[in-house]
Amino acid sequence: MRFEEVMAGLPREKVACLPTPLTRLTNEENYLHAAHGMYLKRDDLTGIGAGGNKVRCMEYILGAAKAEGCDTILVSGGAQSNFCSLAAACAAHAGLKCVILHNSDEPAERQGNVLLNDIMGVERIWMGACDSSIREQHAFEVLEQLKQRGDKPYLIRGFGGINALGYANAIIEMKEQFTAMGLDIRHVFAPGGNAGIASGLIYGNALLDFPFRVHIISVEDDETVLCEHIHSAIAEMEEITGMPFAHEIMDAADIVVRYRGEGWGINTPESAQMVFDFTRREGIHIENIYNAKLLVGYEDMIRRGEVDGDSVVIHTGGFGSLFAQF
Amino acid sequence: MRFEEVMAGLPREKVACLPTPLTRLTNEENYLHAAHGMYLKRDDLTGIGAGGNKVRCMEYILGAAKAEGCDTILVSGGAQSNFCSLAAACAAHAGLKCVILHNSDEPAERQGNVLLNDIMGVERIWMGACDSSIREQHAFEVLEQLKQRGDKPYLIRGFGGINALGYANAIIEMKEQFTAMGLDIRHVFAPGGNAGIASGLIYGNALLDFPFRVHIISVEDDETVLCEHIHSAIAEMEEITGMPFAHEIMDAADIVVRYRGEGWGINTPESAQMVFDFTRREGIHIENIYNAKLLVGYEDMIRRGEVDGDSVVIHTGGFGSLFAQF
Repeated sequence: MRFEEVMAGLPREKVACLPTPLTRLTNEENYLHAAHGMYLKRDDLTGIGAGGNKVRCMEYILGAAKAEGCDTILVSGGAQSNFCSLAAACAAHAGLKCVILHNSDEPAERQGNVLLNDIMGVERIWMGACDSSIREQHAFEVLEQLKQRGDKPYLIRGFGGINALGYANAIIEMKEQFTAMGLDIRHVFAPGGNAGIASGLIYGNALLDFPFRVHIISVEDDETVLCEHIHSAIAEMEEITGMPFAHEIMDAADIVVRYRGEGWGINTPESAQMVFDFTRREGIHIENIYNAKLLVGYEDMIRRGEVDGDSVVIHTGGFGSLFAQF
Repeated sequence: MRFEEVMAGLPREKVACLPTPLTRLTNEENYLHAAHGMYLKRDDLTGIGAGGNKVRCMEYILGAAKAEGCDTILVSGGAQSNFCSLAAACAAHAGLKCVILHNSDEPAERQGNVLLNDIMGVERIWMGACDSSIREQHAFEVLEQLKQRGDKPYLIRGFGGINALGYANAIIEMKEQFTAMGLDIRHVFAPGGNAGIASGLIYGNALLDFPFRVHIISVEDDETVLCEHIHSAIAEMEEITGMPFAHEIMDAADIVVRYRGEGWGINTPESAQMVFDFTRREGIHIENIYNAKLLVGYEDMIRRGEVDGDSVVIHTGGFGSLFAQF
């Protein structure tokens, strides 16, 4: 069976506004004297909750939850977790309940994602400050409590194969979209953090027989750790789809770690500047953690002539986060 | 000449991500036991700056600015004006400079739109607190100063015919989009404030020979004042396009003023609750001023059986504003 057919057969809740738009970065092209077209894939505009890349991930998570007969999702994270708030919004759209387990005390100030969760009326459990491994252990206890009161809960993990399927599907979407638009885009740039986007893109691209060269700009870890994350998520996708990857990650994609600086959430001088420069050139806001380093790498590789055809870079969203980053 | 051809011939800078998506409001339909389909037109996802309805308006404003040989736009408003910040982002995307005239003192705290304008490096003139009529007078002086230093500035007004053309074009877009999707949507719901959206929709709908019944839910003024705003903007559009409207506003559209309460920015009990209820049902955030009252009216008219076919309601954006409303 073809990869597209296998993907189409997986349980999925279509909550996102897809395909996301494609914006030509004309000002960037002029600024860089680019020899080829540059495009921005607008995954900031996925349209549920605050939008962003994780709406794609939620489609397969919610699909699995419903396929297992669940009526509630349980998700865990910090008080200001974007993922938790986004999961709650996607669950609402799909008609599921959501419970969030927070490893913090309940804050007095209701701002950012805490406010969004208030507005959505999300049930929250405040377990007090602890590290995420203790939180994840406690999540299993909460899962049992929810079952005992009659819910049918589905436990969401922050990463893994099912979270990555959204970006395997994004490869199919981009191939179709670019063909429909008459575009010959050869290169896809995306950030590498916990590898949810990276592993999905690399797996989907390989299973479609490499329509693109995928470039992953690490925003966090070195090559070894990032490739371990990617490998682990791909192994889980192989299990879900039954379709083997059959490549070395380093052959199947370009893993670029030289723009990550000191790691996650710590700007390099160049990425700190990029939040200003990109927005001034294109009028499109980006946040500091993912898109800023991604665009530093993207621009630099274009400037160095390392990109031998039209290319697209994925905007992962985070407009809401920007206000808390200054 | 056909209206579509006339519109296509007007100067326009294509900055928005169009057509905006359409989301079926399945949970709303179930909640209201709706006899017909309900859809949300995602003008929150126009994709430049913070997005929202005004990106459509900026396309024709920037087009006119470029057609007149201008290289700079001058826009005026309060320190936290969404329109000013949005105008700056759209100008950047179109390769124009932007100067903002603020009728306030420069705030020490850099949050919200002030932060976005900082990031975009917008040139701002802080004239101190005064009312908007004095600000608008002063804008003409600033315009002269900009000319004297060698800029070619274009002065943007907050409302008027050119601002409304974006929604005349939205009628063309929706007609094509719904046909392409095989949808038979008969009713369009939109908010009525300064009439930028309302007048564009009513004019475009009439010039296309009424593919839709347009329902305007006033969020501010009574029938007389709202119709005066609409009439005035339509008169300016007639002048721009050369195509007469030739209808009474009250015949050409359904002007609904019973959901506006005490006027602009003052929630009714129902609209205050709608920010919570709609988001809980659909996972899509709305703000208080425009969309909340709009959706109160939309839901109530569906509930009363006053909508005799599939319908669409326009999401005007404002996700960024939500955080300042609590």
